[in-house]
Amino acid sequence: MSSLVVVGSVAIDSITTPFGARERSLGGSATHFSVSASFYTDVSVVAVIGDDFMAEDEAVFHERKINTRYLQRVPGGKTFRWVGEYGFDLNTAVTKDTQLNVFADFKPELSAELRNAPFLFLGNIQPTLQRQVREQSNAKFVAMDTMNLWIDIARDELIKTINVVDCVVINDAEARQLAGEANLIRAARKILDLGPKLLIVKRGEYGAAFFTKDSFFATAAYPLEAVFDPTGAGDSFAGGFMGHLAHADKVDDHTLRRGIIYGSVMASYNVEEFSCDRLRRLTPEEIKARFHEFKEFTHFEV
Amino acid sequence: MSSLVVVGSVAIDSITTPFGARERSLGGSATHFSVSASFYTDVSVVAVIGDDFMAEDEAVFHERKINTRYLQRVPGGKTFRWVGEYGFDLNTAVTKDTQLNVFADFKPELSAELRNAPFLFLGNIQPTLQRQVREQSNAKFVAMDTMNLWIDIARDELIKTINVVDCVVINDAEARQLAGEANLIRAARKILDLGPKLLIVKRGEYGAAFFTKDSFFATAAYPLEAVFDPTGAGDSFAGGFMGHLAHADKVDDHTLRRGIIYGSVMASYNVEEFSCDRLRRLTPEEIKARFHEFKEFTHFEV
Repeated sequence: MSSLVVVGSVAIDSITTPFGARERSLGGSATHFSVSASFYTDVSVVAVIGDDFMAEDEAVFHERKINTRYLQRVPGGKTFRWVGEYGFDLNTAVTKDTQLNVFADFKPELSAELRNAPFLFLGNIQPTLQRQVREQSNAKFVAMDTMNLWIDIARDELIKTINVVDCVVINDAEARQLAGEANLIRAARKILDLGPKLLIVKRGEYGAAFFTKDSFFATAAYPLEAVFDPTGAGDSFAGGFMGHLAHADKVDDHTLRRGIIYGSVMASYNVEEFSCDRLRRLTPEEIKARFHEFKEFTHFEV
Repeated sequence: MSSLVVVGSVAIDSITTPFGARERSLGGSATHFSVSASFYTDVSVVAVIGDDFMAEDEAVFHERKINTRYLQRVPGGKTFRWVGEYGFDLNTAVTKDTQLNVFADFKPELSAELRNAPFLFLGNIQPTLQRQVREQSNAKFVAMDTMNLWIDIARDELIKTINVVDCVVINDAEARQLAGEANLIRAARKILDLGPKLLIVKRGEYGAAFFTKDSFFATAAYPLEAVFDPTGAGDSFAGGFMGHLAHADKVDDHTLRRGIIYGSVMASYNVEEFSCDRLRRLTPEEIKARFHEFKEFTHFEV
């Protein structure tokens, strides 16, 4: 039985960066999340795929011992496709094409087994679906991601969903947009007023910040000279974070802070190569080494 | 005798922010720097003013026991004027007007006394002038700031100046522009290749990063809900940083890291009000309290 469940997308991406292009790149929020989390805990993935999803794609999940029993294959369907391109600053992807395919009719259901998993992550899907999954779950800790699209077109549903989770994990621009507030600290207060106890703001190359009503934690990002493909950075961050919580089986302040560092470590490795290529070769020793580097480069004497 | 000398501008600013406007706001790099540094050490300011510089302006320096003997007053001249405006994101000022006035003919000279001060900060002035000052000085540690204008119009001179200082303190966008490199970590390497042993990159609301050829340190910024006027943030940062080094009278890694935190503390107070208003009321206890808050919000257990 898994301690952690992720619901989200599994996708075939086509990605162009200033450093190269890949026509068929395994992606999607549930993919990056689960591969990252698998270094910490047992994880089950709930997502949908089509006939074009190949054995070599599924092998990535099996390699990492991710439970794929709830990876629904739709006969005759095609897997979600995303075509994106990054410029030299690598901060924002330009979407060239999106084909929802089987993802358009995705109605995630949690099996009896998955309902009792103690940790649940709602990857970036339509907020009403996220809430329906949350309502099926008996998890003791539920976190969610979202995106600018849902803030634009499904704001009320999104706010209802935020109200029923423990933790929101979004990026900087999304936090400001959601709160309608340029100052991030005030934006964070407004989002916490919507109901969740915790908010994590991903700041890309600037790191991550973590807010509760009465505490704050922040870290810089790992100093990478070679960001190759930023796709999945946020999801691998969330995977490391949730994976660590599930492994520790607690959500106290120390564990949450360490989780943010583990998330940052995973994101830093994820962006070094296309798709999950780097994480597929990653070792526990490499995770540990970079975790200690975070300690070293953020430390100062009082 | 002062342990720290700053050469830069003293200005009368007119500032508009979303929260208010001030027609006559004491500013300039040497002003914000020296007021900030005065909490740590004895500081002398080398700058130029006109007849319109009032007793109440000069009082700000006297209050903080800053040595103003080398604040040259040009009879019949007008003080440097800057008119700027900030939008809601507060990240970039739009310059509405600049009148160099007496600053146009500023030829800074260090007196025999000032040449022997052990710490020297070259505020943002024309890079050839910065280098001439540097060549007059016997300081054991020299740091400099610059701006996009000099990168654009005096790049060769700037590079020569960077080659003869110990530490460059610039902002994020300037570092990328100077190096012609979108990745900040690679940009930092290129700047260090120009000669300085140390580089500090100010990242505004995201904090600061510190590079040497073989080490890295980074901190987030203080989580401020109310940034009122960002003018002088970078100079008050540099003042806290250099002030701490001069007070400690050493430049080892521990002292540099603590200096970056003190700089971040001073910048965070500076932006809470117009001009130096907040720093004029600041107490050593408040500095200490916020320094400890930095430790608290960046700490995690290994």
